[in-house]
Amino acid sequence: MKGFASDNYAGVLPEIMIALQSANEQHAISYGADDITFRTRKLFSELFEAEVEVLFVFNGTGANVLSMSAATQSFHSVLCADTSHVYMDESSAPETFTGCRFIPIATNQNGQLESKAIARHIIRKGDIHFAQPRLLSITQSTEYGTVYSLSHLQEISQLAHKHDLYVHMDGSRFFNAAANLNCSIKEMSTDLGLDILSLGGTKMGLMYGEAVVVFNKKLTENIFFKQKQSMQLASKTRFIAAQFEALLSNNLWEKTATHANKMAQKLVQELKGFKQITITKPVEANAVFAIFPLAWISQLQHYFPFYVWNAETNEVRLMCAWDTKPDDVKDFIAMIQALENSHVQ
Amino acid sequence: MKGFASDNYAGVLPEIMIALQSANEQHAISYGADDITFRTRKLFSELFEAEVEVLFVFNGTGANVLSMSAATQSFHSVLCADTSHVYMDESSAPETFTGCRFIPIATNQNGQLESKAIARHIIRKGDIHFAQPRLLSITQSTEYGTVYSLSHLQEISQLAHKHDLYVHMDGSRFFNAAANLNCSIKEMSTDLGLDILSLGGTKMGLMYGEAVVVFNKKLTENIFFKQKQSMQLASKTRFIAAQFEALLSNNLWEKTATHANKMAQKLVQELKGFKQITITKPVEANAVFAIFPLAWISQLQHYFPFYVWNAETNEVRLMCAWDTKPDDVKDFIAMIQALENSHVQ
Amino acid sequence: MKGFASDNYAGVLPEIMIALQSANEQHAISYGADDITFRTRKLFSELFEAEVEVLFVFNGTGANVLSMSAATQSFHSVLCADTSHVYMDESSAPETFTGCRFIPIATNQNGQLESKAIARHIIRKGDIHFAQPRLLSITQSTEYGTVYSLSHLQEISQLAHKHDLYVHMDGSRFFNAAANLNCSIKEMSTDLGLDILSLGGTKMGLMYGEAVVVFNKKLTENIFFKQKQSMQLASKTRFIAAQFEALLSNNLWEKTATHANKMAQKLVQELKGFKQITITKPVEANAVFAIFPLAWISQLQHYFPFYVWNAETNEVRLMCAWDTKPDDVKDFIAMIQALENSHVQ
Amino acid sequence: MKGFASDNYAGVLPEIMIALQSANEQHAISYGADDITFRTRKLFSELFEAEVEVLFVFNGTGANVLSMSAATQSFHSVLCADTSHVYMDESSAPETFTGCRFIPIATNQNGQLESKAIARHIIRKGDIHFAQPRLLSITQSTEYGTVYSLSHLQEISQLAHKHDLYVHMDGSRFFNAAANLNCSIKEMSTDLGLDILSLGGTKMGLMYGEAVVVFNKKLTENIFFKQKQSMQLASKTRFIAAQFEALLSNNLWEKTATHANKMAQKLVQELKGFKQITITKPVEANAVFAIFPLAWISQLQHYFPFYVWNAETNEVRLMCAWDTKPDDVKDFIAMIQALENSHVQ
Repeated sequence: MKGFASDNYAGVLPEIMIALQSANEQHAISYGADDITFRTRKLFSELFEAEVEVLFVFNGTGANVLSMSAATQSFHSVLCADTSHVYMDESSAPETFTGCRFIPIATNQNGQLESKAIARHIIRKGDIHFAQPRLLSITQSTEYGTVYSLSHLQEISQLAHKHDLYVHMDGSRFFNAAANLNCSIKEMSTDLGLDILSLGGTKMGLMYGEAVVVFNKKLTENIFFKQKQSMQLASKTRFIAAQFEALLSNNLWEKTATHANKMAQKLVQELKGFKQITITKPVEANAVFAIFPLAWISQLQHYFPFYVWNAETNEVRLMCAWDTKPDDVKDFIAMIQALENSHVQ
Repeated sequence: MKGFASDNYAGVLPEIMIALQSANEQHAISYGADDITFRTRKLFSELFEAEVEVLFVFNGTGANVLSMSAATQSFHSVLCADTSHVYMDESSAPETFTGCRFIPIATNQNGQLESKAIARHIIRKGDIHFAQPRLLSITQSTEYGTVYSLSHLQEISQLAHKHDLYVHMDGSRFFNAAANLNCSIKEMSTDLGLDILSLGGTKMGLMYGEAVVVFNKKLTENIFFKQKQSMQLASKTRFIAAQFEALLSNNLWEKTATHANKMAQKLVQELKGFKQITITKPVEANAVFAIFPLAWISQLQHYFPFYVWNAETNEVRLMCAWDTKPDDVKDFIAMIQALENSHVQ
Repeated sequence: MKGFASDNYAGVLPEIMIALQSANEQHAISYGADDITFRTRKLFSELFEAEVEVLFVFNGTGANVLSMSAATQSFHSVLCADTSHVYMDESSAPETFTGCRFIPIATNQNGQLESKAIARHIIRKGDIHFAQPRLLSITQSTEYGTVYSLSHLQEISQLAHKHDLYVHMDGSRFFNAAANLNCSIKEMSTDLGLDILSLGGTKMGLMYGEAVVVFNKKLTENIFFKQKQSMQLASKTRFIAAQFEALLSNNLWEKTATHANKMAQKLVQELKGFKQITITKPVEANAVFAIFPLAWISQLQHYFPFYVWNAETNEVRLMCAWDTKPDDVKDFIAMIQALENSHVQ
Repeated sequence: MKGFASDNYAGVLPEIMIALQSANEQHAISYGADDITFRTRKLFSELFEAEVEVLFVFNGTGANVLSMSAATQSFHSVLCADTSHVYMDESSAPETFTGCRFIPIATNQNGQLESKAIARHIIRKGDIHFAQPRLLSITQSTEYGTVYSLSHLQEISQLAHKHDLYVHMDGSRFFNAAANLNCSIKEMSTDLGLDILSLGGTKMGLMYGEAVVVFNKKLTENIFFKQKQSMQLASKTRFIAAQFEALLSNNLWEKTATHANKMAQKLVQELKGFKQITITKPVEANAVFAIFPLAWISQLQHYFPFYVWNAETNEVRLMCAWDTKPDDVKDFIAMIQALENSHVQ
């Protein structure tokens, strides 16, 4: 059953399970006014080296919608990659809850937004007939497992800020990106002047829970009201906070992200050895994108679940998670080898 | 720290913690297409003795909003008790997500809706100027810890259905009501012709998670789309399902609800012994409402957290949970005794 | 066909028709950037003796929803009379477009809000679980044809402002109220510290068109964006402005409102002469509310259309308009006299 | 002041003004239950040769939003041209009111949707993570003054219907297209299996008012509720109906549209004589798109207002209206001739 389908097929990190049990020792105030939540918030400010506000929410769509809702009014528009989760995988939740227009921007071949493409959509400022661009949403690492460089992030953040747009980062795989860039968390967030961040937990090995991290004080004014209103306030918030406390302690986030990235590297190195396989994207986080011979795909999927990303080109996505083991990669490669040897085409 | 503040101050039932650990053994398909979710859905159909559809969601507001959204269009109105959670404690989430008007109906002294009061608001059918009543939302057990009788539920459900309204039950403390009525689950749901139910888990001792139970097939058509759209779809759904699987197995729900109700009975019996204390509501589930001498309140709260429900009358709410122990009641009563003895007024 | 059904059954004032024709002489810039709109805006500032911002919109629901939307965010609530047009006759447009909770407040016997009742709903400030009261909406004159005194308006406006609520006036019959109070427009608006006003045109004798008058500069920031977004921006705005220009010139508003009020007075004086008829509300604007013998109602309606307001009590509403003539009243009374004489009961 | 800026800079057709005056003769029932509205509805069924339902609304954005709202639920998406009014010029009104995702589709060089491009966006049917495509919105004539052929319309309508999408036509310049195709109204609507149409009035010479024409009975069920809810229901509906009655009588629509189209033809023929001017789009309705020498633009605009459509390429849009006269074209061309003669570049 274990395969490369998604980092949310993986279960919960052992350290997180322990943290959940520890958090279950006594009564605690509900809705985030408890000690664990208080302690964990402080860990966030240390990690980001800034006085950030933190809201613990249930899932990624919730984190994104809440973040974007805090930065917009309903006559605004949000610029986002046409390949982003926000645009492709969250139904119309963004529109329904914010009321905004979402404008898809074509990305470069690595699924990244370029300044030029963004600039083409920052138009008609002050024109009441046009939903006013107010927020740029960036995904780091991207849906294609690529990672924006710090200078690239600087460039597009500055462009956005220059035109009075807020900058949101969808960081459902934020830590994988940070591990890849080998930079401090601060450099990839606070130093960019990021306004608000959806920080992923579930795909990192939490049972459930994401964090909205607010850098820009202006966005904190109403966001707690909006959290409740967007159905993202847990009565037993402490159990989300406890998971993040574990993740942010003892560099667990770093070990976990580094491991998953490393497994992806191992996987891509091995795949490069097969001439019928074409790697389609730079492997910079925990995903490998590659074109496989059609005949191999279903046979492999039977033992190692994974998703076909583009059915026209036979491009598949292989995700590594915290629990991907070198042996998992080895077994997968062995089966590919067998398919090659048997001349399955 | 342990007190009588809320059943969501309490932690997680031991059986639930074990279930969470068992669910963490291997990879599983995300978004509810996994085995545990499949198994648990079947348990629901057994419990309700009907082919129900079940959606696992994150929290109570999410369950209510999703349920009500599945049963309405935006030009409809929802009739609900003016004391209900939906009306008093969920911000404007219901309006924002459904677009509907929410009409508060005055309740009787026990916080229950009466036919006459409901009927007064089922008006102007077909009048385009008036948001059309389409859904009646009933809370069982009520915010006041009282329990509708089966015949009372029958009466108001029939009234609603007669006028072509759907019936939603906010059952965040559904099991406490069932334990009180000593009836089958089926009698308090399926047999009423209930259309949709928000079934509470968190207050029963889950870490997180509620279930939307759909009886009326017409309401299932779009509800899975709406679950995603309302940010209530967990990628690792299996961990919510696993908790419900434990709750629905070995009559855990019944033992748990019966215990909490029993603790409330014990508490109210003891409180009746103090002549300065007035019990204000029938105690039928796991809550006790009583008027306390003002001077006692803050002294008691210091050791046993609880909420003042009505600051004008000094009415307090005392909630019992799965982990309330006879000794907790005894200690609380002892302190009240001490206050009485010391003539604090 | 002419009767007492509604002031929007009446047609268009002759002066308004002439203004429409004059406005049709040449090309003009669309969306309100034309000369007539410019000139008319200045007339508003003169009338209200304040530098108001003015938006010309299509209809009363549009004016109310736009006004309320400019003063709220979606996690807010709006306090309004349970008898108000906003609550009873605009479907769920207010909720759908603003996202807010609308809280109905019981009125006194004249359909007016009292401070005490309002104050009971200004609660739980800062509590994220409760939609935060942010706006008080007052209807002047009321749905019952009564008129708030200036001191009454002062009192409830001050209460609202003291608690940081904005004050909106639904003035679909604003001029009828002003004519009754015999005060300056300024006294009934600017001097109250009113934040925003829906100023009625259609019921006063316009073909179509209402104005949103913004007193509080804070509310002007986004309101032009919201006007477009709420589908209330006319491409040929000049034709709405031209109608208001005529209404505000030569005291046409005053003559018109005074006439309609006078007709209502004439009507009520005559009705008081019939002992089977009970006048139920003070007649202070252009409406008369009275209980008629059931047997009379349908016979009268056949010749003089009017609405039964309360089918249980046989209370009817008789509206006078700009085109109600003394003879219309006389004919109506004559028929009542005939019914009385013929002992119809 | 008269120029080529927009067909909504033009005033009101004389026949329409007369109709408005005639409609002002007596009291009439409000909200569309009057005789004129009744009569006019019948004219629509005759014109479209089908039993259509007709709703009279205030403006184009209102007509589009109401139409699209009647055909969707909030988890749906709407496919539309990236150049369409719905996408470019109606703020976020479509999203705010429907809750849907709006997906922009790249058009061919004439601003028209091609089957292939549409098909690429009809994807992921049944996938709850993706806003489900439910409606195709076509603009006839297009924003570029081009007209879809009947076979082109047939092709894309069939594609949409094949995939269970409704088809909406934004016909703010519907009559100009019909006049160009020289086909019956039925051929360009009913025969296509069109589901719903926004039929433009204002740009044709009405003072205000558009019509939503519903062909598909399924879409009529709730649309009257939604009209009220979307603030598009006029109390004095008769005055919109009366304008349409005039437009649909004596072929006024045809004469008017034909005239405006003819003026555009005259204009483009003359412009083709200037070698510094490039015509950029086929002229098929009442608009001419052309690239002008930059130096000419502001000089011309001073006397003949018009819009620069693309500031990078100096493409301008010249709209003809019902009141454009051959002499207006002649004067405009004369000034261009003078600019050319004086070697302004």
